[in-house]
Amino acid sequence: MEDSALHELFIGELKDIYWAEKHLVKNLPAIIKAATSQELKDAIQGHAAQTETHVTRLEQVFGLLGQRAAAKKCEAMEGLVEEAKEMIDETEDGSMVRDVAIISCAQKVEHYEIATYGTLSTLAKVMGHTEVENILNDTLSEEKGADYKLTEIAESFVNEHASDEKK
Amino acid sequence: MEDSALHELFIGELKDIYWAEKHLVKNLPAIIKAATSQELKDAIQGHAAQTETHVTRLEQVFGLLGQRAAAKKCEAMEGLVEEAKEMIDETEDGSMVRDVAIISCAQKVEHYEIATYGTLSTLAKVMGHTEVENILNDTLSEEKGADYKLTEIAESFVNEHASDEKK
Repeated sequence: MEDSALHELFIGELKDIYWAEKHLVKNLPAIIKAATSQELKDAIQGHAAQTETHVTRLEQVFGLLGQRAAAKKCEAMEGLVEEAKEMIDETEDGSMVRDVAIISCAQKVEHYEIATYGTLSTLAKVMGHTEVENILNDTLSEEKGADYKLTEIAESFVNEHASDEKK
Repeated sequence: MEDSALHELFIGELKDIYWAEKHLVKNLPAIIKAATSQELKDAIQGHAAQTETHVTRLEQVFGLLGQRAAAKKCEAMEGLVEEAKEMIDETEDGSMVRDVAIISCAQKVEHYEIATYGTLSTLAKVMGHTEVENILNDTLSEEKGADYKLTEIAESFVNEHASDEKK
């Protein structure tokens, strides 16, 4: 495999997720504000703090690779955040439906990140960047944890709804 | 939970993924053509056939809900496909690196779909649409299978690379 081209692909992917994480840091506060349930607000708030750590970790990764940290606009993440804003506009303030819409959008964001960090981790492994691989895996675990937490919250909404129906 | 608003959210999400699946049907042939390894070409070809089935299944779901099948532009999927095209343009024809880039993009697509069908399945469950839920779960399983297959191919590239390094 052509090593320099692989390195270039790796750096390109790092720049993409660096833009994506910084875009999230900027946009998560409005999403937290739009959420209704305290459980969901807390979950996103907790993940917003992690997202700032993910930005710092990426800067560390760029440093370990002897590169200046640089962001490259990630069209997909821009689309996902745009979709979240539209969903918020289209649902009623204070409604459970808006929370469900926010969870749906947030899980798409998490899955985008899970796919990206998964690829980055595989590439770091193949290129023998062990320290970088470990850092990327720490973030990957947190993204998976955030997705899992969102599923739990969605399921608690389902159960509440089911018990309301029985009344 | 407000049932009509939840129904609206559900239909909106169905329209989004219906557009996304049809967009993939249109764009997968160019991605198959750009891939180098026969294993990857075959995997995407196989998934392209599944994608056509996913479109048909969504039409069936709209029918079961007494709705006309309608598509609503999915910005995120448009962004993901755009990113794949850029990656193809930026990598050399016939190179393994291009295949790695294609796998990376394809896994982002799969994860977008896994997140979406996961939400749709939960919503179908909460609204008691059992037949619809089963149809959505069939597609969800196939998307997860496609993601798994792509990871296997990526890992076989890693192993080939590692054995080349040892020579």
